Amino acid sequence: MNKVRAAIVGYGNIGHYVLEALQAAPDFEIAGVVRRAGADNRPEELNEYAVVKDIQELERVDVAILCTPTRSIEKYAKEILALGIHTVDSFDIHTGITDLRRTLDVEAKAHNRVSIISAGWDPGSDSIVRTLLEAVAPKGITYTNFGPGMSMGHTVAVKAIEGVKAALSMTIPTGTGIHRRMVYIELNEGYDFTKVSAAIQADPYFVKDETHVKLVPSVDALLDMGHGVNLTRKGVSGKTQNQLFEFTMRVNNPALTAQVLVCVARATMRQQPGCYTMVEIPVIDLLPGDRETWIGHLV
Amino acid sequence: MNKVRAAIVGYGNIGHYVLEALQAAPDFEIAGVVRRAGADNRPEELNEYAVVKDIQELERVDVAILCTPTRSIEKYAKEILALGIHTVDSFDIHTGITDLRRTLDVEAKAHNRVSIISAGWDPGSDSIVRTLLEAVAPKGITYTNFGPGMSMGHTVAVKAIEGVKAALSMTIPTGTGIHRRMVYIELNEGYDFTKVSAAIQADPYFVKDETHVKLVPSVDALLDMGHGVNLTRKGVSGKTQNQLFEFTMRVNNPALTAQVLVCVARATMRQQPGCYTMVEIPVIDLLPGDRETWIGHLV
Repeated sequence: MNKVRAAIVGYGNIGHYVLEALQAAPDFEIAGVVRRAGADNRPEELNEYAVVKDIQELERVDVAILCTPTRSIEKYAKEILALGIHTVDSFDIHTGITDLRRTLDVEAKAHNRVSIISAGWDPGSDSIVRTLLEAVAPKGITYTNFGPGMSMGHTVAVKAIEGVKAALSMTIPTGTGIHRRMVYIELNEGYDFTKVSAAIQADPYFVKDETHVKLVPSVDALLDMGHGVNLTRKGVSGKTQNQLFEFTMRVNNPALTAQVLVCVARATMRQQPGCYTMVEIPVIDLLPGDRETWIGHLV
Repeated sequence: MNKVRAAIVGYGNIGHYVLEALQAAPDFEIAGVVRRAGADNRPEELNEYAVVKDIQELERVDVAILCTPTRSIEKYAKEILALGIHTVDSFDIHTGITDLRRTLDVEAKAHNRVSIISAGWDPGSDSIVRTLLEAVAPKGITYTNFGPGMSMGHTVAVKAIEGVKAALSMTIPTGTGIHRRMVYIELNEGYDFTKVSAAIQADPYFVKDETHVKLVPSVDALLDMGHGVNLTRKGVSGKTQNQLFEFTMRVNNPALTAQVLVCVARATMRQQPGCYTMVEIPVIDLLPGDRETWIGHLV
């Protein structure tokens, strides 16, 4: 079997889990890791791999798995598609997805390559479930309930508030797509908890949600990368009311994102040139090996 | 908008619900209904439609929705594909799916048409969920638990046993893909319940399962077309253990099957010639209207 050669671009938390998912996949070879520091201070687990500053230093890369911050994805994807390399990412700004898809579609087609975007768990695998449920019960309401789990975006927002030394914002689902924010902080010396707490409550990230701020001795002691989703739809199939659907998961957040990225990296090899979201890819293309064997086993 | 013209082939329980789903769909026209009796004794709800014995009597059919018994699907699909009409079905013998796909793939390609098979809820929409979960947690075990709900196959098997006047076999999930069979019967006069019950327990359909047989005054009074699924997977994403997933639904069984059939009838218009199972079709192709609008809304 010809293995798919993948490069990991960006080596933070997601990049680390992508490395593990690629090592566990039967059909991939790791072409190398691209990081700003290059090979300087490389973590031990990268010792056997090429670690470079520029993807062009790597040999024969089929697909680049972008593990950079969301806001830099467009730039990297364009550059890497132009080198004739497929790209995948987990771009997660829901309102920016259709624009990114249009932009990268032009770029991908110009270079006869494939880009699969917003491929994490939400957007990503959850999007497939939402789309399937919309199809099988076309009238009705879907609620996506997140958590309990850490919200990266909200945590960063808290850390930006003056006086906050360390922070964790947990997303707690209270049903029907409504979420409570549980914020745990440590304070810098000389700051007043009541004032900092009020500033957090007034922040645009929190002002619309039920938010509780707690002072704790150690934020680090509370960190856990577990997350969850509970997605429900109640709707109508044809003219039949009250069709009930529910999808629930309890997962390690970066591990799932990384596994999804590896699945879509595989799927880039099976699509026509262009840019796609996960709902535009047949789910069977996410799996390695022989299609007919999977159909016999899973359908 | 050019509406898709669909014919309903076979007008039993599923055919009736397909009619409703087509009536509720914004992008379909009903080309007509094909039934053995033709227009004789047509049910009132078919008054405004062409009802014929042979699909060739209908005008311009894009896609035929096969609502005939599973064992006759291959024959009908071949004949109708040869007429240059797409076909969809909910063929449900899991062990026969890959063979049917091969056979109809040849036929579909020969006539430049599309056939989507085994498109109900299991096989069908459940298959998409199973495949997605296999991809995002490649090591692990999936259990598909059915019910509580009526099993058509088991009910027919009970009815075939001597002395049984009426029967209902309910599938009750007890977890890890194991099912209890609750069988409700009425007896013909002169038969002994103990003996008939023993014959049911010894039938190949029941011999491996925990089976309870109950004598009831009216089987008809127990009939309910509700059904359910609880599908679980516990697995490994990359090298991270204990990723937990669960998909549950409580639905009207024929209404969901019919809605899925209408979704894949739509999807036939968007595939290259050939035969497909649902896992080979992008989920977005199941939805009517503009792709980019859905992506903005659902991804």
